[in-house]
Amino acid sequence: MVRYSLSRDPGTGTDYHAHSKRVINKDGSFNVKKAGLGPNTRNAYQSLVKMSWARFFLVSFIFLFIVNGVFALLYTWVGIEKLGEVEEKGWFNEFMYAYYFSFQTFTTVGYGIYHPIGHLANVISTIESIIGWMCFALVTGILYGRFSKPSARLMYSEKALVAPYGNGRNSLQFRVANMRNSMLMEMEATVLLSFVDKSRQNWKREFTPLLLERDHILFFPLTWTIVHPIDENSPFYNKAKEDIETMDAELLIRIKGYDDTFAQTVHSRFSYRCDEMVWGAQYHPAFDIDSNGDIHLFFDRIHHYDKLDTSTAFSDSSN
Amino acid sequence: MVRYSLSRDPGTGTDYHAHSKRVINKDGSFNVKKAGLGPNTRNAYQSLVKMSWARFFLVSFIFLFIVNGVFALLYTWVGIEKLGEVEEKGWFNEFMYAYYFSFQTFTTVGYGIYHPIGHLANVISTIESIIGWMCFALVTGILYGRFSKPSARLMYSEKALVAPYGNGRNSLQFRVANMRNSMLMEMEATVLLSFVDKSRQNWKREFTPLLLERDHILFFPLTWTIVHPIDENSPFYNKAKEDIETMDAELLIRIKGYDDTFAQTVHSRFSYRCDEMVWGAQYHPAFDIDSNGDIHLFFDRIHHYDKLDTSTAFSDSSN
Amino acid sequence: MVRYSLSRDPGTGTDYHAHSKRVINKDGSFNVKKAGLGPNTRNAYQSLVKMSWARFFLVSFIFLFIVNGVFALLYTWVGIEKLGEVEEKGWFNEFMYAYYFSFQTFTTVGYGIYHPIGHLANVISTIESIIGWMCFALVTGILYGRFSKPSARLMYSEKALVAPYGNGRNSLQFRVANMRNSMLMEMEATVLLSFVDKSRQNWKREFTPLLLERDHILFFPLTWTIVHPIDENSPFYNKAKEDIETMDAELLIRIKGYDDTFAQTVHSRFSYRCDEMVWGAQYHPAFDIDSNGDIHLFFDRIHHYDKLDTSTAFSDSSN
Amino acid sequence: MVRYSLSRDPGTGTDYHAHSKRVINKDGSFNVKKAGLGPNTRNAYQSLVKMSWARFFLVSFIFLFIVNGVFALLYTWVGIEKLGEVEEKGWFNEFMYAYYFSFQTFTTVGYGIYHPIGHLANVISTIESIIGWMCFALVTGILYGRFSKPSARLMYSEKALVAPYGNGRNSLQFRVANMRNSMLMEMEATVLLSFVDKSRQNWKREFTPLLLERDHILFFPLTWTIVHPIDENSPFYNKAKEDIETMDAELLIRIKGYDDTFAQTVHSRFSYRCDEMVWGAQYHPAFDIDSNGDIHLFFDRIHHYDKLDTSTAFSDSSN
Repeated sequence: MVRYSLSRDPGTGTDYHAHSKRVINKDGSFNVKKAGLGPNTRNAYQSLVKMSWARFFLVSFIFLFIVNGVFALLYTWVGIEKLGEVEEKGWFNEFMYAYYFSFQTFTTVGYGIYHPIGHLANVISTIESIIGWMCFALVTGILYGRFSKPSARLMYSEKALVAPYGNGRNSLQFRVANMRNSMLMEMEATVLLSFVDKSRQNWKREFTPLLLERDHILFFPLTWTIVHPIDENSPFYNKAKEDIETMDAELLIRIKGYDDTFAQTVHSRFSYRCDEMVWGAQYHPAFDIDSNGDIHLFFDRIHHYDKLDTSTAFSDSSN
Repeated sequence: MVRYSLSRDPGTGTDYHAHSKRVINKDGSFNVKKAGLGPNTRNAYQSLVKMSWARFFLVSFIFLFIVNGVFALLYTWVGIEKLGEVEEKGWFNEFMYAYYFSFQTFTTVGYGIYHPIGHLANVISTIESIIGWMCFALVTGILYGRFSKPSARLMYSEKALVAPYGNGRNSLQFRVANMRNSMLMEMEATVLLSFVDKSRQNWKREFTPLLLERDHILFFPLTWTIVHPIDENSPFYNKAKEDIETMDAELLIRIKGYDDTFAQTVHSRFSYRCDEMVWGAQYHPAFDIDSNGDIHLFFDRIHHYDKLDTSTAFSDSSN
Repeated sequence: MVRYSLSRDPGTGTDYHAHSKRVINKDGSFNVKKAGLGPNTRNAYQSLVKMSWARFFLVSFIFLFIVNGVFALLYTWVGIEKLGEVEEKGWFNEFMYAYYFSFQTFTTVGYGIYHPIGHLANVISTIESIIGWMCFALVTGILYGRFSKPSARLMYSEKALVAPYGNGRNSLQFRVANMRNSMLMEMEATVLLSFVDKSRQNWKREFTPLLLERDHILFFPLTWTIVHPIDENSPFYNKAKEDIETMDAELLIRIKGYDDTFAQTVHSRFSYRCDEMVWGAQYHPAFDIDSNGDIHLFFDRIHHYDKLDTSTAFSDSSN
Repeated sequence: MVRYSLSRDPGTGTDYHAHSKRVINKDGSFNVKKAGLGPNTRNAYQSLVKMSWARFFLVSFIFLFIVNGVFALLYTWVGIEKLGEVEEKGWFNEFMYAYYFSFQTFTTVGYGIYHPIGHLANVISTIESIIGWMCFALVTGILYGRFSKPSARLMYSEKALVAPYGNGRNSLQFRVANMRNSMLMEMEATVLLSFVDKSRQNWKREFTPLLLERDHILFFPLTWTIVHPIDENSPFYNKAKEDIETMDAELLIRIKGYDDTFAQTVHSRFSYRCDEMVWGAQYHPAFDIDSNGDIHLFFDRIHHYDKLDTSTAFSDSSN
């Protein structure tokens, strides 16, 4: 922890005068609210790319109906007779037929049964067709941005385990698997322990990296159990479960790797708080080999573990 | 192998209670079947990008015909007379003309000879034109994703050879060449030996990296022969062909490099099992220089090798 | 500085016979004007991607109106009667209706009320529809290129501070925060000091890297204060503010990191000149934790600092 | 050179039984012709992205005219009267009007003056509109691929110089500048010397890396002179110009760096053969500072150098 002792502001903050919520949420986002930036500094494209599909389609349709509604109003203002012969009369009918014509122009369908007559209607429909043309290019780009955005979808075991590790030692473990059909390679894992030093009056949040038995693997077709040995260099060494809880401990996890379908490096974040760690347990294997020699990976088994009877330094105090 | 001895679950699995098929298939995929994930967790975009062109067009056309068929049914339900005057009568003709009109709307051709009449037909055709507009944006993005996806196309020699390496030593060799017209640079090769340790009752699959004479090259215009010297550090040292076969040995190969056309790093995977290794042989050169000084690379010669008469430690036991 | 002593031309130039403006502008660009390249070597796509949105739309609309104007002239030359029956006569009306028809063709709306009659009008409108088709593809690509271009938007504190650093030492500090909603990870900072050696007749601009207390962080949800300790290895050691000013000193900063939304590494450049450094000051914290445990980051506070009364080696000479 | 002595096939070939042309051409491509692959293994997309703009438009237009010509023939076969009323008769007129209609369908303009009548014409035009719709998506993707493809455009000095380097030593130098308006950063240079060892009967081509005074720079706004000191470790040490010529020497250069506009790493290749090296010369500075403090970079001066009178170990033998 010596390397970090001088860093007053290493990106995650150190001066915490109060209890805070978890640092990394379960979806990988950080628990920070930003203020003091005008709306112009938000990146509309990033929002449109990141929002859910349901929301994206809702936003798109509302946008389409408003834009076309504005043009429909313009056409009714010009006069519906400038769009051709409308069978049904009345402001509602006129507005609706203007609306249909607007969409026929915007989407460039242009049946022609309705068509602009006179300069004003022609100028408005020309402008609308250009706007539709541009909006289409925008939507194409956003849609491509949405589904081509590289991202990892890892399944993390629900619980991190404090499991025996041979020679009477313990280890902290969690397990991940790749939920996508893509192949992940050259995986790297980094685990930070975040805890609050309450020994001083001004609480300090500290971040210290946990040494891993193996922090990278080449291929990742099955499951990967990431193991932090609890030896004399570990901040967990000789600590009971209660000590860890008092420290407001949280494991901050970053796993990255090369995704063969996206052909790019993808990142995943996750965290375990104290109540998501189990003292004295061991994971079930999550895959089987059938009689044909085929290997089957079962995602529902990623979370499965056995409580151990053997009392260890940790389980002593927790069970 | 000491570095790996503690890793119980390094992504590729270790506890194999039975014979399994090859780890890496000839197309670079892994021999793993995934279960326990609902269909919603599959990534439709990735599937559409990865499937063959034939399949992709089939899926696209079926999708187009179903969507337009649904709209055609809607139009016939509204009444074919709401689309204009259709010459030929009867449900088949009416459905087909509704189908043609649907496609004219969906693709935004919109000739206008058929056109929506009345509110219901107009609303339906407006919705269809928006859906067509969005589908087009989707197809554009997927098509771009398909052919812009960076990937390596390396040709691997059919057989890996155990070839003499000077000073009476042997080496394990295989040869690759770049099948694309692009330039590959900064190549890196990693070779793992996967074998099953059958000395214990619970068979253990072990993965150990093979040291290469040269694991990276700067330029890659011709062929690259990747060489693992069989010296005292090699798991092949003093092993006969039969020993290797008993071990269920498989070479797991990962080659990556920078592709100048994609402007990205591309990856290739391959594997050789025991029956794809030849003891006591040497590769033919695969390129020639003609009288103009031009260099010609012949891909059909990548696989060519000569059996050697000289008996070596390996060929002794195999031939 | 020994490593750099032999480099006569390390990309940023060394032989400066006169005072120059700042090396890196506040927007991250370099203060260099290029000459001697013909216009064909400029990259039109890069310009269209980098220009402001206002300018981009202006350029697009001017382009659209010129291209369609040319076609409108062609149609009036062929004869407006070849486009159908135009109600209003006169060259202005004829040109305008040709213009409307041109846009209907270019955007593929094609209402049909005007339509080409005869070979010449048909050939021209066919060519225009192909050009419109291609332009649309171009605009789609440029729009996607514009908003998908990965870039960092970091807020740098207005002033770099010379702040106490413990044990009577000083340090040079500046502070950054991420203005985007995206998550930045694996940040790396590099700081070069550029100064002019005026001891010789031919002034030499020197570039020397500044050692940082911490040049990389893993997560970056809040603020990061980058600290250069002013110890005996620092070029600032035992220098008064006036010495630094005489040296034409400028801090050249490059920060890079992985952006989770773009899924790519993004870069940011910035610089501080002497008049943007404050001797003897300390930053205010820029974030708060509310009673719910939520963390709030205030961007307007990034620039806040307190002048210190304690006289230091540096502040002695400056205040 | 010891590291390379065992590599029989390091990607660039070693067994050359004859004189070959230069290894790397002036445009960065390699001098290798590939044979033995069927046409199906060529990557059409990569070809379309890499070809010149003139050629790309030619290919596109030929493709469009052939596809539409085929459909025009189909429509004339169905009967021109199935497209509406054509004023002018005769096979040429009929074919041309079918052609115009085909383009109106393919580009989805669809004026409607011509429109399909009857099932056969409707089915054909439906298929054509789908094909046009798909082709448009393809063209959009290819166009985007073309102008978004990251690539470096560096200007290399026409000649590499053997220039004095202090203390009576010499160095081999060449100079580069960035022709794009983008900012290049984190540049890395690698220089291999390729030469033919003619001491044995079977000529061997050897590749040995040249040690550079400085093989990376952080910022690259001006020019970068890459310097290989000719000391006792250099293959040029104590060699006269004639010796170098006899060796068939060629400098193979790879420079890479991060381009801020593409937001990706770009690569550049170049080579100098013996006749492009000048013994005993020194580069002119290529940039000036004007009275405003603005720095001007002149690309035409990149190639300028002065012949030196001072006789050096190298110039002795060459002049």
